[in-house]
Amino acid sequence: MSAIPRQHVSHAGLVNAVEGTLADFLASQIAALDTVDPALGGFARTARDLVMAGGKRLRPTFAYWGWRGVAGPGASAEPLLPALGALELMHTFALVHDDLMDDSATRRGRPTAHRIFGARHGARFGSSAAILVGDLCLVWADQLLARTPLPPVTLLEVRARYDRMRVEAVAGQYLDVLGETDPSSWSVDRALLVARHKTASYTVQWPLDFGLALAGVTDAEVTEAYRAYGLAVGEAFQLRDDLLGVYGDPAVTGKPACDDLRTGKPTALLMLARRMATPAQLAELESAGIERKATIVTETGAPARVEEMIRSRVTEGLAALASAPIDDEARATLVELATVATQRPA
Amino acid sequence: MSAIPRQHVSHAGLVNAVEGTLADFLASQIAALDTVDPALGGFARTARDLVMAGGKRLRPTFAYWGWRGVAGPGASAEPLLPALGALELMHTFALVHDDLMDDSATRRGRPTAHRIFGARHGARFGSSAAILVGDLCLVWADQLLARTPLPPVTLLEVRARYDRMRVEAVAGQYLDVLGETDPSSWSVDRALLVARHKTASYTVQWPLDFGLALAGVTDAEVTEAYRAYGLAVGEAFQLRDDLLGVYGDPAVTGKPACDDLRTGKPTALLMLARRMATPAQLAELESAGIERKATIVTETGAPARVEEMIRSRVTEGLAALASAPIDDEARATLVELATVATQRPA
Repeated sequence: MSAIPRQHVSHAGLVNAVEGTLADFLASQIAALDTVDPALGGFARTARDLVMAGGKRLRPTFAYWGWRGVAGPGASAEPLLPALGALELMHTFALVHDDLMDDSATRRGRPTAHRIFGARHGARFGSSAAILVGDLCLVWADQLLARTPLPPVTLLEVRARYDRMRVEAVAGQYLDVLGETDPSSWSVDRALLVARHKTASYTVQWPLDFGLALAGVTDAEVTEAYRAYGLAVGEAFQLRDDLLGVYGDPAVTGKPACDDLRTGKPTALLMLARRMATPAQLAELESAGIERKATIVTETGAPARVEEMIRSRVTEGLAALASAPIDDEARATLVELATVATQRPA
Repeated sequence: MSAIPRQHVSHAGLVNAVEGTLADFLASQIAALDTVDPALGGFARTARDLVMAGGKRLRPTFAYWGWRGVAGPGASAEPLLPALGALELMHTFALVHDDLMDDSATRRGRPTAHRIFGARHGARFGSSAAILVGDLCLVWADQLLARTPLPPVTLLEVRARYDRMRVEAVAGQYLDVLGETDPSSWSVDRALLVARHKTASYTVQWPLDFGLALAGVTDAEVTEAYRAYGLAVGEAFQLRDDLLGVYGDPAVTGKPACDDLRTGKPTALLMLARRMATPAQLAELESAGIERKATIVTETGAPARVEEMIRSRVTEGLAALASAPIDDEARATLVELATVATQRPA
């Protein structure tokens, strides 16, 4: 297992350490399932490949820096690694189930879980196996989290926050799929509510809070600063996702082009476009082909407005952090991460 | 919340106490989600209705008696209730996802989750919402388990066993759906492997072990007796399920008639029927309609053989229990439960 250097940790070093922990854990799980039935080993190997396929590892990163903001400068991050890896396993669970619900064909440039299994034994099996791969990753996350060598009381507090995070992620996803059933009844406000629940809290706010709990810290001022930063930057992250969902380059995002237009997902971007559209644009938005739709959305001015919303949220997030009683290196990195998470190409 | 009387607990009293704990917990979760968005409250209420729709509550029952076998006669069962309720929430997760994979129309005499949601906004939404309702129940189970007022070290040991149980249940279900993709490649042995993983360990063996952990007991003799009893009675339970899946009365089982014949699930019963069939019967099994298939299965003699397998397993399970160093009331109840679980009409 790679060790994290105690100070001046690089992003690559952190990601390597988390991925090393994941690889070790998954290898032992695969070996155990292989002895029961080789088909189970194969199932677990597919799950491992999905976990290890890359991604931005944003949740472990935010959790690490949330911890680092309050942990003493000499504190070793080594004991955190299982907990950080657990966040990534939980994220794979969410991605696999979300991709099935959206029937997305690719993720991180590779076929999604239900497509991988579907290619083996048909679409019906693909859906079932994807549900189960997600379920397995969620249970694995709990098992890895349990290996975090921290006092039981600390671990139970970490778990309590992790549980609240998971409920919010599931609730946000429910609103997301509900919105798709009747996009015309949806609104910008409701799209932002989904963004807060499905993404902001799950990607930034709770991971930071999870990091605080790992440090055994309950300081109200830091908690509030992380919360404000997390929700603002997290919403900006989702708004960037909305833009990428329409204008992202599939070669860079690893997802199909115009995926949100295809599924009719009522994102804040598309709700804004509808609100800002002229009657003629609105009529064409209902009937046009997907590429033409993307052009109309641009013409409404909605993408420029969303860029403004991203900027104002990042500014708000950074302001919340400015005077928080946290370590300066952590503060500087969180400032940088706010940009990384909201100005990304994928 | 109903309290469990300290001794001579009735099955109805235990079930009432667990259901009371579940009802209180679910009411608080629904209230919290309602304040976020009424649609989320509605989503949570549907989840609650699925949890509260009845069922045999076998897992909490086995866990309670597993605990009772080693807990002192004066020990209060009150602190166990959240943990027992958690097993039932986890079971709802498994049922909801399994029913979606099998596309079962009814469960416990009511429409299944994906059918309920599907009736509201179409089949696609139904599937997505059912995945999410299952996910929510699994996370709720963790939250309720965390409320068990036991020392953190005990709770972490309980969780470790709970996690192993969940991995086995997911692995068993994967083999189950894999078997359906190519029933002709399946075998009686592999069907029994599925039965052990998907049902025996999950319904009987782990709940008993979970009960032991709740009592903070690690006695090797009791652990082994529970394991042997759990696997034998659990397999017999699944073999009864195989018979009910073909011959059960839908009015009593709450599930459609001949469900296993419809989905082509390669159960031990059907694998045995194929092995025992004459060439003429085998040919007809491939092509006949569902009702005729049920008749042919009977004619092969497989159901009678399965009844024998059930009897021998129950005998084996009771033998394992006979000399175990456990409380006599618990032993008597576990003997009775072996019959209840394997001679049931539903």
